[in-house]
Amino acid sequence: MKIPQDAIDPLLDDWPVARLATTGPDGRPHLVPIVFFRDGDLIFSAVDGKPKSGGELARVRNVERCPGVSLLLDDYSPDWSRLWWLRIDGMASVLRPEAGEADPEVARARRGLRRKYPQYQETPLLADPPTLLRVQITAIQGWCASPRALRDRPRV
Amino acid sequence: MKIPQDAIDPLLDDWPVARLATTGPDGRPHLVPIVFFRDGDLIFSAVDGKPKSGGELARVRNVERCPGVSLLLDDYSPDWSRLWWLRIDGMASVLRPEAGEADPEVARARRGLRRKYPQYQETPLLADPPTLLRVQITAIQGWCASPRALRDRPRV
Repeated sequence: MKIPQDAIDPLLDDWPVARLATTGPDGRPHLVPIVFFRDGDLIFSAVDGKPKSGGELARVRNVERCPGVSLLLDDYSPDWSRLWWLRIDGMASVLRPEAGEADPEVARARRGLRRKYPQYQETPLLADPPTLLRVQITAIQGWCASPRALRDRPRV
Repeated sequence: MKIPQDAIDPLLDDWPVARLATTGPDGRPHLVPIVFFRDGDLIFSAVDGKPKSGGELARVRNVERCPGVSLLLDDYSPDWSRLWWLRIDGMASVLRPEAGEADPEVARARRGLRRKYPQYQETPLLADPPTLLRVQITAIQGWCASPRALRDRPRV
């Protein structure tokens, strides 16, 4: 059955993790888990400041070539009557603002991410120079196995 | 850091859920969570027998058009030093054996899925006629935030 409409916003606001699919240079899908902040019909995800081994991240290179992406929010449970998923399709772009962290959109995304994830007190939220993915939501589709799938669910 | 080599097989064998990315007719990625059984360098996932509203599933149609897929195993934790992911790229095909459940490969996949998921005692494992996705693994890449990411982890 479809996820009830009134369950969608709380998931987009509070669910801690999404799996992001982009398209690689070979045309095949590429997957990575991300943390994110939702602001209206935009989703922001930061390239954090931890050292990276392989240069620019694949997700960033992929989005610059193919902006069409998909995000999946879901939670596995051994009780299959509690399964649900929410799929978000969108058009992604890479933000590398010249103004750096002073850019108003970056500042808003940073505030939202910091509010949602206390972990960013330890992990540097932005690389230098700041790089973020912004996804403009174009479609949302959701499924749940039963009406109780999203009820009384312990928060991750 | 890379996931230790000796951690990969237990994850492929025992982790209960994967997110499957296929490529849609518009060339954009499509995501869905799946349960699966790993047998050597093959991964099987069944189209279960529960009623479906929209005809043939998108993942099945997509694989018939574009066999290159990606699977992601991971687990979110609020303790970011425990994050890890395992990404499997592969070539998928749709099994619709004429012999139905008597087909030896389907029978093996069914036994493996039933052993891994007691839930299939309630949920009909195969649709009629039986349809499964088989993914030939072509590459595996894994990352973990720290050496303790995969240690002492409560099993889902």
